[in-house]
Amino acid sequence: MATLKVPAQLPSPVEDSEQLRKAFQGWGTNEGLIISILGHRNAAQRKLIREAYSATHGEDLFKDLDKELSSDFERAVLVWTLDPAERDAFLANEATKMLTSNNWVILEIASTRSSLDLLKAKQAYQARFKKSLEEDVAYHTKGDIRKLLVPLVSIFRYEGDEVNMTLAKSEAKLLHEKIAEKAYNDEELIRILSTRSKAQLTATLNQYNNEFGNAINKDLKTDPKDEYLQLLRAAIKCLTYPEKYFAKVLRMAINKLGTDEGALTRVVTTRAEVDLQRIAEEYQRRNSIPLDRAIANDTSGDYQSILLALVGHED
Amino acid sequence: MATLKVPAQLPSPVEDSEQLRKAFQGWGTNEGLIISILGHRNAAQRKLIREAYSATHGEDLFKDLDKELSSDFERAVLVWTLDPAERDAFLANEATKMLTSNNWVILEIASTRSSLDLLKAKQAYQARFKKSLEEDVAYHTKGDIRKLLVPLVSIFRYEGDEVNMTLAKSEAKLLHEKIAEKAYNDEELIRILSTRSKAQLTATLNQYNNEFGNAINKDLKTDPKDEYLQLLRAAIKCLTYPEKYFAKVLRMAINKLGTDEGALTRVVTTRAEVDLQRIAEEYQRRNSIPLDRAIANDTSGDYQSILLALVGHED
Repeated sequence: MATLKVPAQLPSPVEDSEQLRKAFQGWGTNEGLIISILGHRNAAQRKLIREAYSATHGEDLFKDLDKELSSDFERAVLVWTLDPAERDAFLANEATKMLTSNNWVILEIASTRSSLDLLKAKQAYQARFKKSLEEDVAYHTKGDIRKLLVPLVSIFRYEGDEVNMTLAKSEAKLLHEKIAEKAYNDEELIRILSTRSKAQLTATLNQYNNEFGNAINKDLKTDPKDEYLQLLRAAIKCLTYPEKYFAKVLRMAINKLGTDEGALTRVVTTRAEVDLQRIAEEYQRRNSIPLDRAIANDTSGDYQSILLALVGHED
Repeated sequence: MATLKVPAQLPSPVEDSEQLRKAFQGWGTNEGLIISILGHRNAAQRKLIREAYSATHGEDLFKDLDKELSSDFERAVLVWTLDPAERDAFLANEATKMLTSNNWVILEIASTRSSLDLLKAKQAYQARFKKSLEEDVAYHTKGDIRKLLVPLVSIFRYEGDEVNMTLAKSEAKLLHEKIAEKAYNDEELIRILSTRSKAQLTATLNQYNNEFGNAINKDLKTDPKDEYLQLLRAAIKCLTYPEKYFAKVLRMAINKLGTDEGALTRVVTTRAEVDLQRIAEEYQRRNSIPLDRAIANDTSGDYQSILLALVGHED
């Protein structure tokens, strides 16, 4: 469930865009107005506002997007306001660049979006960057991490609910054999994770747990500092229990000495219209503090305000 | 250019479907009528005919499709009449099954279709078979062949014309190094083939030829009987010069002792609305005989007639 709150009575996109024009003139001068508008409009509405702005003023609402984003607040507003497919393309591209390289972001986008949303992100990526997400991921990774990430980002996964239990049993056994041999980069293991439907994979991993007595991620925790194994476990969590995965990303971002604003902004902006309510439940269960209070404790100013608006926190 | 010929004046889809109903009653009794209709309707028109048939008679024009297709003629009519995405899904599925396994068909579909057409084929595959093409290909292949085919079938390739010459040079050098080391299954080599746009790949391979004096496929012909190397060369041809690839498939199919009707039907039905004219030119250049005459020499009866209709041969 989403956390975004959209008022029942809305101004027209033209009115919104004119208000934003005023708020932007002398950027940063009216953050409250920006939050009160953009923090309460869904993707379709934000798109209409950008179109209205562009039609009236002949320029993109966010002409500065390609420039370096200076403050956490500005980045949050900009990332949030992008269309979801454009936003994923933007975040994924950043994650393939040398200085901002981040395999976690690629993994997360590849493994938690629906097949159609991932496809739209790839199309947005191609339209914007004139190359494919797959080629950039493949080019900027190597070794085992490439072997894992490229198939995950490439697949157009089947999304039906059908489960083949015979297959689940045989593939659970196969996974267990490979893990017992410490063949964590085995191609059969990667094949199963990267190509099976989420329903089928869940059945396989339940079977694994039933048959061999441990959740697979426990068996994959032999070396907690190995990045490949970390990514492998994260992929499994993203594919089978995304809310729990995101709750953990939030926990790490907030608990870090010096908040990880990049991760915090990413999870809040990308999930506010999808499942942030469920993520907040997971967060509270594990951390014994509501997500909005944790965010309020850890952030300040306009950045805090935009995040709280997106997590649905009532003032 | 297509070879399919559609008359300027067309009966309505309902009229066509009623004529086909008559022709099908006692299947095989009026092949000439079937050919005169279906052999001269494009994909959109055939779809309307199927819809009209289904609306009138409450059943699919080709309810027998899932049964074994008995004669070459029947198979050609059925494969041809399918919607292109459904047809690719049908052919690819057959190619992943044990008894009809065919890595060439998978390679061909993955590497010669546009990104959007390949995506549509994958969607048709999922709708019909309740699983993904990628998982079936990954499951039914192994070793080097899997390493090559799965990325080719997974990628949503960028289709722009932009070429990065610096990259073309560095990747041509990389390909040459790997081939010099006989590392034909090297992951960098597969990455380049499977993820770069066709325009970029063509630039890289031209650069390879200029810099190192041989076309890459010549350097990859060290063991003509190795299936992986054959597939690798075929992939390169499909991606950079598909008409030539298809002309060769036709040549092998026709010259074989006992025609390979499967390959002949596949190429004619899948390319008749796309580029069969160009393929026929390549064919004639290499074989010194027009394609329609070669087909006429090698086939007979109704099967011959439907093929000749599709290659645009005037009676």
